[in-house]
Amino acid sequence: MTAPTDAVETSPDIQRWAVLLEYDGGAFVGWQRQANGVSIQSLLEDAASRLSGGRDVASVTAGRTDAGVHASGQVAHLDFPGSLQLNPRAVRDGLSFHLKPHPVAVLDAAPVSLDWNARFSALNRRYRYRILNRSTRPALDAGQVWHVKFPLDADAMRRAAQTLLGRHDFSTFRASSCQAKSPLRTLDRLDVRRDGEMILFEVEARSFLHHQVRNLVGTLQMVGCGRWPEERVRQALDARDRSKGGPTAPPDGLALTGVGYEPDPFAVAGANIRSKTLDAS
Amino acid sequence: MTAPTDAVETSPDIQRWAVLLEYDGGAFVGWQRQANGVSIQSLLEDAASRLSGGRDVASVTAGRTDAGVHASGQVAHLDFPGSLQLNPRAVRDGLSFHLKPHPVAVLDAAPVSLDWNARFSALNRRYRYRILNRSTRPALDAGQVWHVKFPLDADAMRRAAQTLLGRHDFSTFRASSCQAKSPLRTLDRLDVRRDGEMILFEVEARSFLHHQVRNLVGTLQMVGCGRWPEERVRQALDARDRSKGGPTAPPDGLALTGVGYEPDPFAVAGANIRSKTLDAS
Repeated sequence: MTAPTDAVETSPDIQRWAVLLEYDGGAFVGWQRQANGVSIQSLLEDAASRLSGGRDVASVTAGRTDAGVHASGQVAHLDFPGSLQLNPRAVRDGLSFHLKPHPVAVLDAAPVSLDWNARFSALNRRYRYRILNRSTRPALDAGQVWHVKFPLDADAMRRAAQTLLGRHDFSTFRASSCQAKSPLRTLDRLDVRRDGEMILFEVEARSFLHHQVRNLVGTLQMVGCGRWPEERVRQALDARDRSKGGPTAPPDGLALTGVGYEPDPFAVAGANIRSKTLDAS
Repeated sequence: MTAPTDAVETSPDIQRWAVLLEYDGGAFVGWQRQANGVSIQSLLEDAASRLSGGRDVASVTAGRTDAGVHASGQVAHLDFPGSLQLNPRAVRDGLSFHLKPHPVAVLDAAPVSLDWNARFSALNRRYRYRILNRSTRPALDAGQVWHVKFPLDADAMRRAAQTLLGRHDFSTFRASSCQAKSPLRTLDRLDVRRDGEMILFEVEARSFLHHQVRNLVGTLQMVGCGRWPEERVRQALDARDRSKGGPTAPPDGLALTGVGYEPDPFAVAGANIRSKTLDAS
């Protein structure tokens, strides 16, 4: 998808920009460019290409979200031609304009050095999952939640979730399609709480295996509905066997809410800073 | 639209049901049946007719929301044939089924007496209005918020809002199309607060004039962006002249969140009660 990292880092003809993205994943085949439908990557790269007078622009993202998965805080970087006159506001508004009418918007943009990488510089990823737990199907939140009809015990799910925190072999919660070299991951946060009819999961780790969050939620839901005792979640983890885990929760309820960097490129030089327009260096 | 109240109240052939509704108003011409598009009323009455084996069923609603206005707690009543065997769960799930695939869902249903009226028995209506206050257009909340790009001072809006509480002649905030006999209304609540990029209005009154909430929000937004001093809001109210008010805020940000009754028909005998299924009396 992108030029080899070595080539990019040494080229004087490239300027790299970090962008903060929001999107409704329901309309797309996922982040990654595919032959069979519209991807967020293809829309973003096409918008960046328009901003560059038709030249190809490659992107790298912090998290390649699946079809149907949303984002309120996705981060990507784009390599623009070095000769282009850009500033944070122009990148943010220009990309958002060219992304119309698709439900993808650029919230912020900041110039970064060529050794900064949206994927490899990320210190953590944060996801939110929402279950709408009531009898009636969603009307206002359709496509944004997993609708579970039978009553769920959020307290039991929260307790079971705590046994998964820390560094483990997460093979039980890993999709067969996962391409990661190791199933070891460190789960830093897995909060579960009820807010009226909604059950909210807040999940954080340096990185995740493919489908890990959805498999965790699908497994905890087995506890919530009473089909699994709480301790079976930890037993499933220890089994290191996908067949011992619960089902994969649907993508609708999932959103990438944030990616952590140190320092945060947007806090330093983003378009949202209400000061003089910054020029790309 | 409905039979005269007298006739309904004395007929032994009718059973009246209260229903609690959620809908995404973006797809509709509004609550009220119209020649030029799909209304929520027509969908609901058609669904009720299907549940009644093809017989006409009339509805009365607590609030006839405009095109684009949403609801998370709308209430209506439906007059079904008296001979029909109904229970709360069957009404809720049957209507929700026949309302597919439209973004309208029945959250609860309860049998009510023939002198109970969704409109006239209502003690108050509660609305929520949401402004997304940031540079970039919404992707995830498209159609559910008013997007205002320039920074708004929520504290100034909140202070100005408090001068509107209580019983007043609200002619300044009344649409020319309003059919109410009197412009006098009692505003019981008009809270304004910021939650990140979102500015939330919570509004409550026994009843509202046509466009009253949207005209109040549009006027307060003039204070928020600094074009109006705070005291001009009260001066506009005192002028009793629509031309002295601010613009009408778009419908997208508005949702009817609840209607108050004493007693609450759904608390008494709604489908959400986890007990034996109740039969309509």
